[in-house]
Amino acid sequence: MPHVLSGRAETPTQSRILSYVRDDGPLSRMELASRLNVSRTTVAAEVGRLVELGLAEDGGPAASRGGRRSSLVDLDAGLRFIGVELGATSMRVAMTDGRLSVLSRATPQRSDIRRGPETVLAEAIVQIRKLLADSGVERPAGIGIGVPGPVDFQAGVPVSPPIMPGWDGYPVRDALSREFGSPVLLDNDVNVMALGEQHNGVARSASDFLFVKIGTGIGCGIVVGRHLYRGADGCAGDIGHIRLDPTGPVCACGNHGCLEAFFGGAALAREAMAAARSGKSATFAGLLAEHGSLTAEHVGAAVAQGDAVALGLVRDGGRRVGSVLANLVSFFNPGLIVIGGGVSGLGHSLLAEVRSVIYRQSLPLATGNLPVVLSELGGDAGVIGAARLISDAVYAAG
Amino acid sequence: MPHVLSGRAETPTQSRILSYVRDDGPLSRMELASRLNVSRTTVAAEVGRLVELGLAEDGGPAASRGGRRSSLVDLDAGLRFIGVELGATSMRVAMTDGRLSVLSRATPQRSDIRRGPETVLAEAIVQIRKLLADSGVERPAGIGIGVPGPVDFQAGVPVSPPIMPGWDGYPVRDALSREFGSPVLLDNDVNVMALGEQHNGVARSASDFLFVKIGTGIGCGIVVGRHLYRGADGCAGDIGHIRLDPTGPVCACGNHGCLEAFFGGAALAREAMAAARSGKSATFAGLLAEHGSLTAEHVGAAVAQGDAVALGLVRDGGRRVGSVLANLVSFFNPGLIVIGGGVSGLGHSLLAEVRSVIYRQSLPLATGNLPVVLSELGGDAGVIGAARLISDAVYAAG
Repeated sequence: MPHVLSGRAETPTQSRILSYVRDDGPLSRMELASRLNVSRTTVAAEVGRLVELGLAEDGGPAASRGGRRSSLVDLDAGLRFIGVELGATSMRVAMTDGRLSVLSRATPQRSDIRRGPETVLAEAIVQIRKLLADSGVERPAGIGIGVPGPVDFQAGVPVSPPIMPGWDGYPVRDALSREFGSPVLLDNDVNVMALGEQHNGVARSASDFLFVKIGTGIGCGIVVGRHLYRGADGCAGDIGHIRLDPTGPVCACGNHGCLEAFFGGAALAREAMAAARSGKSATFAGLLAEHGSLTAEHVGAAVAQGDAVALGLVRDGGRRVGSVLANLVSFFNPGLIVIGGGVSGLGHSLLAEVRSVIYRQSLPLATGNLPVVLSELGGDAGVIGAARLISDAVYAAG
Repeated sequence: MPHVLSGRAETPTQSRILSYVRDDGPLSRMELASRLNVSRTTVAAEVGRLVELGLAEDGGPAASRGGRRSSLVDLDAGLRFIGVELGATSMRVAMTDGRLSVLSRATPQRSDIRRGPETVLAEAIVQIRKLLADSGVERPAGIGIGVPGPVDFQAGVPVSPPIMPGWDGYPVRDALSREFGSPVLLDNDVNVMALGEQHNGVARSASDFLFVKIGTGIGCGIVVGRHLYRGADGCAGDIGHIRLDPTGPVCACGNHGCLEAFFGGAALAREAMAAARSGKSATFAGLLAEHGSLTAEHVGAAVAQGDAVALGLVRDGGRRVGSVLANLVSFFNPGLIVIGGGVSGLGHSLLAEVRSVIYRQSLPLATGNLPVVLSELGGDAGVIGAARLISDAVYAAG
């Protein structure tokens, strides 16, 4: 049963109980007492409080081990978290249980972030309300939200986001929190995608890794010692504006030759249009005739049809991404690189090129044990990560 | 009085007492009891044990505050740490007290790391023994040592160090520890320099910063949340092999166009020799006639004499270092960049160029509050940082 009110863990012991039960499934009180090295009386008291807070519940009798029967402790079955991922041109909203398994998803929306916070957040609120209403949930235990720009994490506001006009300093966190009466956390979209991969994707066992998002923008989530590294001003990982060539195309940021200016969504769409119009690619010409304009997604479609121009675009882009990552590998020596985001739908052609450059150009010591892989979660990475972000805060003590 | 035996802190409380006294000077037992939120009896017991371990001592009566007189607790005045910095062509050894103030230095030696671990470590041991004997110290409380290559920190051995033939896997830590009967820690030279700047230099209050060493090699120490970040294989910060231009000069690593191939010590010496021989620079020609060959240090001398060719070399190099750092600023968003190492003796001409590129090329949000400064400790950064490395381990519980 959903609770009208659910709170946050109040003590370190409560917090550890919730983490154990989240990560390992229902546990007996006896097992918890032993792991925590406290008495069963203490476990009973702390679990009692977690039940009152709407965070835990009785999970039925534990399998007998010959002694006194112990009962299982589980996360409250009514716990619901909401994860929201706002992209430059898309919106995803999902609802999870306490273990962050996705229970339901709103239909992914096309949504232009440039319409400003009031409009976009109003749409997100409609989506969230619908998910809650469909499942009879009155109030989520927490909401996590990712946006495509730098964020002041402490203040819960975007900071000078280049592709989000009107959002600078807008109180996204507090506006959503007021709307739903639930705790809310706001972060950069790439950071929440990295958290998603860490929670339930290919980065589950990685301590230090990079999550590289290639979509409309190109960005990177940095995890150090299993914690997000956000940088001194909250804009760490902004690799889309690493400069490849001072004589390259002009970028949205005002500089020339940034990675994003070569291989972001807009650049890919522009190249595809050019190939369609010049007659270099019959595939692109056909797609243009059919859809009226071309986006980065059509490049994926053309690659799937074996179009040589499209494949060339992906290879060039992969080479450029690879050369940026090769340098970051020398600098950061990560244990894993995960490639995700919309353009990663280009898949294995892209991955092969990225890998080839990294393995050729970085120091052998830094690449000897370095897997470079595609995201396992695909479109769910952001919403699962956003839910993880807020659930960590709800499960953490005071 | 130096102790024959000194141990390591045994409890978290002992460890906190040592940190407080190291960072804030002698403290009264009353003050310690209040900071630690424990009884004076507990403080007395823990201090008693620290005295037995040779780590703390009575610091005389505290200033009266009207109540019962409390006595001060200080670090043991006989505590001595040794810091060793092995460079590609140099060796520095210093002895510090428990607060890591340098008490004495061995005369800096020219020492070629390529002669292998037995020869080089034997020399270091002679230097250390001399420092100890001159002060009547029987045994140091610990020794920290930095080497110019990647290190497996847990194992205490260099790993595939490109400019250190014969050192791969050599048990540097254990060899020194056996020799002196003291705890020893081994790290990369750039990492210990970063620790030195954090302990007593310009990075004292920085949480996330980069220490960039420009010397024979070019490398970078990375500090995240006041802790060294070493990377998945211990080779994080190897920015000397970031590639600037695939058609550039061949590098010691086998690739072309690495930063180090343009602006490392060997590259500068080569350019200086070329300028001397071609007659482009009378200053270099004069220095060559005088010394028989030219090194990176002569470039500094020529800059000091206002030689235009030398200044051009420094500006070109600064521009290249700046463009690598500008990209790392976009990626890492540090709160501070410190430039040190031998070539940093080129000083303000270099700094001006590096700054200009970073501030022009990185995103404004990441550079708005970003100081880029020269090292304050100069030649002492490495030895102080090496002493800090081992003292942290000695002062930390268990």
